[in-house]
Parts: sequence; structure tokens; C-alpha cells
Amino acid sequence: MNKLYSLEQNQGRRTTVLVGRIAIGQDFALIAGPCSVESEKQTILTAHLVKEAGANLLRGGAFKPRTSPYAFQGLGLKGLKILAKAREETGLPVVTEAIDPRDVGWVSEYADVLQVGARNMQNFSLLKETGKAGKPVLLKRGMTSTLDEWLNCAEYILAEGNPNVILCERGIRTFETHTRNTLDLSMVPAVKEISHLPVVVDPSHGTGRLSLIEPMSLAAVAGGADGLMIEVHYNPPEALSDKDQTLWPEQFGRLARKVLALRQFLGSLENIHAPA
Amino acid sequence: MNKLYSLEQNQGRRTTVLVGRIAIGQDFALIAGPCSVESEKQTILTAHLVKEAGANLLRGGAFKPRTSPYAFQGLGLKGLKILAKAREETGLPVVTEAIDPRDVGWVSEYADVLQVGARNMQNFSLLKETGKAGKPVLLKRGMTSTLDEWLNCAEYILAEGNPNVILCERGIRTFETHTRNTLDLSMVPAVKEISHLPVVVDPSHGTGRLSLIEPMSLAAVAGGADGLMIEVHYNPPEALSDKDQTLWPEQFGRLARKVLALRQFLGSLENIHAPA
Amino acid sequence: MNKLYSLEQNQGRRTTVLVGRIAIGQDFALIAGPCSVESEKQTILTAHLVKEAGANLLRGGAFKPRTSPYAFQGLGLKGLKILAKAREETGLPVVTEAIDPRDVGWVSEYADVLQVGARNMQNFSLLKETGKAGKPVLLKRGMTSTLDEWLNCAEYILAEGNPNVILCERGIRTFETHTRNTLDLSMVPAVKEISHLPVVVDPSHGTGRLSLIEPMSLAAVAGGADGLMIEVHYNPPEALSDKDQTLWPEQFGRLARKVLALRQFLGSLENIHAPA
Amino acid sequence: MNKLYSLEQNQGRRTTVLVGRIAIGQDFALIAGPCSVESEKQTILTAHLVKEAGANLLRGGAFKPRTSPYAFQGLGLKGLKILAKAREETGLPVVTEAIDPRDVGWVSEYADVLQVGARNMQNFSLLKETGKAGKPVLLKRGMTSTLDEWLNCAEYILAEGNPNVILCERGIRTFETHTRNTLDLSMVPAVKEISHLPVVVDPSHGTGRLSLIEPMSLAAVAGGADGLMIEVHYNPPEALSDKDQTLWPEQFGRLARKVLALRQFLGSLENIHAPA
Repeated sequence: MNKLYSLEQNQGRRTTVLVGRIAIGQDFALIAGPCSVESEKQTILTAHLVKEAGANLLRGGAFKPRTSPYAFQGLGLKGLKILAKAREETGLPVVTEAIDPRDVGWVSEYADVLQVGARNMQNFSLLKETGKAGKPVLLKRGMTSTLDEWLNCAEYILAEGNPNVILCERGIRTFETHTRNTLDLSMVPAVKEISHLPVVVDPSHGTGRLSLIEPMSLAAVAGGADGLMIEVHYNPPEALSDKDQTLWPEQFGRLARKVLALRQFLGSLENIHAPA
Repeated sequence: MNKLYSLEQNQGRRTTVLVGRIAIGQDFALIAGPCSVESEKQTILTAHLVKEAGANLLRGGAFKPRTSPYAFQGLGLKGLKILAKAREETGLPVVTEAIDPRDVGWVSEYADVLQVGARNMQNFSLLKETGKAGKPVLLKRGMTSTLDEWLNCAEYILAEGNPNVILCERGIRTFETHTRNTLDLSMVPAVKEISHLPVVVDPSHGTGRLSLIEPMSLAAVAGGADGLMIEVHYNPPEALSDKDQTLWPEQFGRLARKVLALRQFLGSLENIHAPA
Repeated sequence: MNKLYSLEQNQGRRTTVLVGRIAIGQDFALIAGPCSVESEKQTILTAHLVKEAGANLLRGGAFKPRTSPYAFQGLGLKGLKILAKAREETGLPVVTEAIDPRDVGWVSEYADVLQVGARNMQNFSLLKETGKAGKPVLLKRGMTSTLDEWLNCAEYILAEGNPNVILCERGIRTFETHTRNTLDLSMVPAVKEISHLPVVVDPSHGTGRLSLIEPMSLAAVAGGADGLMIEVHYNPPEALSDKDQTLWPEQFGRLARKVLALRQFLGSLENIHAPA
Repeated sequence: MNKLYSLEQNQGRRTTVLVGRIAIGQDFALIAGPCSVESEKQTILTAHLVKEAGANLLRGGAFKPRTSPYAFQGLGLKGLKILAKAREETGLPVVTEAIDPRDVGWVSEYADVLQVGARNMQNFSLLKETGKAGKPVLLKRGMTSTLDEWLNCAEYILAEGNPNVILCERGIRTFETHTRNTLDLSMVPAVKEISHLPVVVDPSHGTGRLSLIEPMSLAAVAGGADGLMIEVHYNPPEALSDKDQTLWPEQFGRLARKVLALRQFLGSLENIHAPA
């Protein structure tokens, strides 16, 4: 039996996931915003800035799964309300993470896309709830997940009747310490060969280094990614988390222009064939 | 500030976790039983056989986190009732996994030790619920977890007021394919140097190979492990999951005798010092 | 003290490595050819075909480091002579591997670029000999090498007085089994930030999958690679090694056209700045 | 065709490697000494101390493969002469590394056992020379080597007619940073199941932490290791390399006593069978 995620099962048709007026898988998804929602000012100001710079979706975490129980865990409901206000002001749909199956219902009332984070990729209860939630789901690859395991986690969501799954490559854990993770861009074409689901790339977590975010964004796009998810803060040195991998809005603006120009150019390459 | 898990914070005293009459950390914990509870007959028969063979705790999964949504997911409540009956008949306390924070309350009514599995190590909602559940928790190391991350997950439980945490090394993910995982026994002495918590080893998942379970069990004990967790089935070829790493009761019996003899012998080594 | 490989030590100037009329680091290096030199016909025919398709350097192994001592080990001197003949006929400079420090001298008489393979990255005797050989060296990253270790291996060559080192990312070893290796493209911008040396990418070994070679080639170029190294055979099903990752000449031709068009386009992106 | 390393090819007989009066594979090999030969005084003093403490072979490097070309690279021939003098004074046979195929011949005149280091595991020219050298070879597992690749490297030596190969597990590279490498003890029983060759363990490099060397030595022995290879220096804080993982002679003495007592005890376990 073919799995629901397989391209074959979908008779070779690719899925597009509608979020507001963006058809992810067809339109390029430029998801930007802060790691965490820290305050109304920070989120709304950043939302305006990323929108001007070219983003078409807003990211921001209200629940942060943190290694230590004593680290900032997010603003919770208050954070979701801030995100909703940012959406109202900017028109940007909101991508935000749920980390507890009990929260999926009410987080869905605020989110336009529910994110399942890398640490929760195999949290099967959470996957099932997001499968029932009636909202698109952005499913990050686990730090140590194989392609097969990742796609099977998508299957948990699809099997509950939710066809709107977006995969997100965000780097895997290896011995290399220069980068925070090893961004495995080969997963982009690999996913698209096997599955009909769109796939975006998170170079912020994938590299953990400011200087690598722009080149790896361009590489992701050239490799066929359907979008990018990037951490931006109106003032990175003030960020409560991930400050070393968070772009200034101007840096993001330059990246966005390059990425969109590249994306357009790549369309023209499709007519290139082997010499006759 | 010292973390609650640290040996220093506990003023150098090691924790023992009382489960029935077993003081884990002092008494050797020999946790055995099937991967999944499949039927009353299978579980109760296996429970009797592992008890005769030397086990002092019974393991068995009523909820199975499986890569594919179409694989056997466990018997749920029915499985827990079977485990309770097996405990009644054999006197063996029950170690069983909870995979959803919503289930922790009622799973606790059946379990003597709540297991948090490798895939859920950083399921922080689940950790917090097990921290409130009033039952000891066996916390498996994630497949890609560092020592520091693992101990911080224990901290999530301890910080909720539950001091009864048992750590379980079960192998990490590496490039090596001969074994299912790479059993990282160095974590046993490393945990005991840093933390006051007891640590047991699961050579069944840690190696995934029948022939390696006994030698790695002996190695774990020699390295200082406070116990072992081993998959045994009254008839392994019939097992619904993990059949290739499941021991026959006689194999487990031989292993148990060797392990307990070794454990006793190791006590005598403590008087060995450098030549004068 | 700055290392010789460091960009700072070179006062911010990037190195270009002259090979024939190609200035690698400035001109794009498109290195193509068979995994192994198998016969005169195979090599010369393939050389003509890759040249027509756009290659500007020819690769081919006369010495093959193979996992098993009983696998095809290469034609040795005979293979080098075939490569020299292919160069004569096509004008393409030859990149070929030396695997023994004793061979570096005479291999250099045939090679235009000496390759040090991944398994030999830390074969320090070999590195030192290539440092004395008076020919440019293409240094592949070891399968388990960190960036720092890799650059230090370049230092071994530079310290012998040979400034002409080209780095080659070819994938690292991880738990992922869908791809042969995990191609770590983040090393491309990372190398260029730290070092003045040019860096090329080998997507053939880096992915081990035919369908991933073109998208990952485009990704490498977008990420800033100075060249690509690709396995091509005039008839891949007949290849004695690596047949599953070897392109047909037409496939390579299409890839070459796309890559060169992309490379040209990327130049235009450099004028993009943040919105004023 | 069975490989020469396979237990089956050897009709189930295990190889013992004679070094002086030690039959490795039957007698327990306790190989101890400094990381590098630094001076006559250091080596000879350490040799006497490890002998008194229980070692039956002396280790010490005259050629050190170092990440940086500017780190101490060993004393070379002078170091070998010091090792020969240490052997003369103490009677301990010498295990020392060759890193260049050109050196194997004359290093063999000083060494009793030729070591091939982890970085050179797949240096096939070196392997072939050690296969011809007429001396036993201790072959370390590469940091990223699978079991199959490691055994195939032994095959390179065996295929040259040298049957005296000793394998040495020394840890693999993983994401875990608490330990220098991840010591993969499961390779000990895995090697012994597949191959007739003896296998020893190096917990010094395998853990990189003083406090873990003794427990992991005991674990290795309980897992079936035929010996241990341990870094000892008469005064570790003065060591030029690896000082953080080098034992004082007294620490080694205590370890040796425990290990030998454990080894003897394990013999008695072999008569334990399943309950009737």
C-alpha cells in the first residue's frame, strides 16, 4: 500500500497548502519573525519590518521547548494574542508552535499554520491532534530523524484527514561543531521525489551562524525549496533566545530580494535541456 | 545555581528509588518482560517466567510509539489491566510507558514506574506531568541526546517535586549499522559522577542483536549500572514487535545469574587500591 | 599566529589556482569524468563527451582506495598514461588521486591536479609529499572531519610551500541512509569566510543518488562553490565502480548548462542591497 | 568466499598473537605507556612503573599524527631507540605506530607490534606494508568506520600473508561532547562473533576523561575484550600530548589489579547456564 504522503499515491500531483492568499508549494513561502514572542512591541514592530522586507508569513513562538526548565518558556496565550494582533495589523498569516496535544485546539484558534518542532517530531499524540485541528501543519524534521521517519510523521497527520502538511528541513545533529546543526539540503529534492508535500528550509536553526544564513538560503532555493523560515528581530542583540542566529530586518530584506530574484530565474532554467 | 540532579546539590548522597521492596540505586534492578503487552496469556506467562529467572521488575508497553501510524500501537487501557493482573500474580512491580501528558494520571494508577521513552525525552509537557504524578519515572535517553540535555530532562521532572527519577541509557544514533543503536556505556559512570540519580541500561534496544545482549549486560554492570532493562517473551518468534532483540526466558535466566554473580563480585573489587 | 590558510593571513585576498588556462577560484571549475580509469576507450570517449558538455577539467582515478582488498584497485601507471592521452586529445587538464606518498612524485608527472581523497585526508605523509610536488592539490574533506581538521590538513600542504590548494566538500557520515553521505553545503560559505582557498563540491559522492546530483549542484553553486566535481561515464551501467551515482553525458550536459547559467545570474545578485 | 578474517574461514578457531611470551587472545594484554615518547627519562621511568603496576606490553608513539602541522610530531628514530632501550631494561615488548608506508620496514626493527592508528585505518598502502612486515599489527578502528570497513582493513593485512592482527576499539565520532569519542564496546562481542581475531580496547582515547577510564576498562573486560591499551605517564601534568586522559602509575596500578581480578572471575561465569 502506498503511504498517503507518496507522490505515487497522489498520482504525481503536488500538494499546495493554502494559507491566506499564499499557496505554499506554488508561491514561495518567506516565513520570518522572532524566535519567541517577547512583547507586543517586539512582535508587532518586527512583523511590520519583515512584511516590508518581503515576508509573506509571520513566525513567532508562544511556547518554547527549552533544554532547561529554568530558561524562558514563552508567553503562552498572551503570546498568541500578540501574534493575532500582529496578523491583524500586517495581514501576515501566523506560523506558531504547539507543544502539547492538549493545547492544539485553542492554539489553532490563533494560528494560521501549526508548527510541530524538531523535538516533538515523534510526539505522536501531538501529531494526531494537529491532524484533527483543521489548520495546516508545518512539520520540522527531528534532529536525528531519517527521511523515512520524517515522512511517516507526516503520515500520522495525513491519516487523521488533514492533507495540509508542509515539511521543514532544519538541520541534523552531527559531529561538526562549527555549525549548530548540519543543514541537510539533499532532503529538499529527496522529499520532492518521494512525496507530494511542499518542503521549506530553516537556515537559522540549520546553521546557527549569521554569516551562513544568506548563502544557505540561496542554496536551499536553488535545490528546490518551496520556502524559507528565518529568524528576524527588530533588534537582535535584545532577543531572549537565538540571538546569534537572528537577522536584522535589513539583512533579511537583502536576503529576501536575492531569494525572490533567484527563484524567478530558476523558472527560466527549466527549459534547459541537454544539447541536441 | 546547582541543578537538582547534581550530586553536589544533593551533598554527595546518591538517590535510591523505592519501588515495592526494591531500592533502585542500592538493589540491582532487573527489569524484564515483553516489548508490548499483546495478550493476557503472553504477559502473565512471560511475567512468571522472568520472575523465576531472576527479574525483580516487570516491563511491558501498553502504548507503543511506532514509526508508522499503521503499526501495532499497543492495547492501551486493556494492556494496563493485564499488567496489573501480572503484578498481582507475580508480585513484580510494573514499569510501563506513558506517551501522552493527558494519560499520565490514569496510567499512574496501574504503573509502579512510569517510563518516558527515547522519542519523548524532550516532550516537556509529558515530563512535567510525570513530575506531578507521584510515581517514580524511568527516563530514557533520546537517540540523539547529549548527557547535558538528558540530565536537563530529569530536571524537568525533579523541578515538579518528584525526586524519584531513574535514568536509562538505551543507545544513540550513529553511522554504524551493524547494531540498531550504539550503546554508550560511558554514560553510566558519567551520570554517576555528575548526578545522584540511579542509571540503568537497556541492551535490547541498545544493540538490537540477540548475541550482544548478554556481553553488553555484563559490560554495563561492570561499568557501574544500577540495573538492566531487557526484552523477554515466552516465545520470541511470536512477538509482535522487536522479535529480533527479544530473549527466550532461559537465555534471560542465564544472563540474570551471570549478572547477579558479577554484581556481587564487583563489591569485592572496591577494596582494591594501588600497590603501596 | 594566523594559519596560512586563513583569509586574514592572506590580507583578505582570495587565492586562485591556475590549472592550464583555468583560474580556479575565479573561473568556475567543472570537473567531470569517470570514477575510475577502466580502459583507454572508456576514458577517452568520456573525456570527449564531458568536454563537449561543458567540463573544463577531467577527473579519473588510476588508484582507487577500496573498502575490500579484492575490489578493483585501479590501473595504476597504465591508467595515468590513458589520462595523459585523454588530456592530449581534449586539452582538458587532469585531476587524479594519489594514495601513497611514494607515488606522489611520478603521479605528478601525469596529473595537473593531485587529488587527496577523503579516506586519506589525515594521511599526513601524503599531505606533506603533495606539498612538495609542485602541482595544485584538491583536498577532499574526510567523512568524519570537522572544518577545523580539514583546514589544518590544507595547512600541512601550504606549510610545505605549495599555495595551490583546492578544498572539496564531498559529504560526511551521518545516521541518514537515504543518501550515501550527507552533503554539508554549509561548509562552502564557512570555508570562504575563514579561508582564502577555493572550494568545490562533489555531489556524486555527496549524495550517491542520481536524482539528487543536479539539484545539489545548483544548490552548491548558489551557496558560493567555486566548482563541481561530477562522475560521468559514457555508459554508466558498464562502470566498474559507483555506477549508481554516475551521470550519462547528456545528463551532465544539461546540468552544466544550468549551472553555468546560474553562476552568471548570481553575479547580478551581488548588486542587491537592503531596501534604502 | 569467506574473508580471511572470518571465524568461519578459520573453522571456528580463535587466533592468538604471540608477542614475546604473551599470547594475545589467550593471555590478557595490558598495554600501557605514554602517548608519545618525549625523552629517555620519561619513557624508561614510565616503562618501569607500568611494568610494576601490571602491564605486559609497553605503548609509546615515536610518530604522532597531529591535527596541526605545528604540534609536536614525535621524536622519530630517536624515539624508537628509546623504546628499544625501555624494552631492554624492562622486558616489555613495544607497541608503536607507523604512519608512513616508507617507514614500516625500519620501524619494524624496533617494534614488537606495529600500530596502525585510527586516522590511517584506511591508508591502504600502509596496511599492505604492515602485512608484509613480519610483525604483529594492532589495527585501530577509524573514528567513523563501520565494523565491516574495519574488518576489511584487517583483510588487507591478512591478505598479504600476515595472520597476526589485533583489532583495537578506540571510540567513534558522534554528537556527544561530554566524552572525546563514544567508546563503542558492542564492537567487542560483535568482532568476536564474526572474526577469529583478538580485540582490545583503548578507553583513554575512547573516553578522553580520566574518571571514565577505570569503569570503562572494567566494562570492556566484562564485554569480552582481550586486552586494554591505556595512556600512563610518570607525571601526567608534564605530558606533551593527551595529558587530560593520562593516568598516574598508581591509578593504572589499581585499575590493573581490578581488571585482572575481574578477568579471572569471568572465567568462573562460563559454567553458569540457564536454570534446569
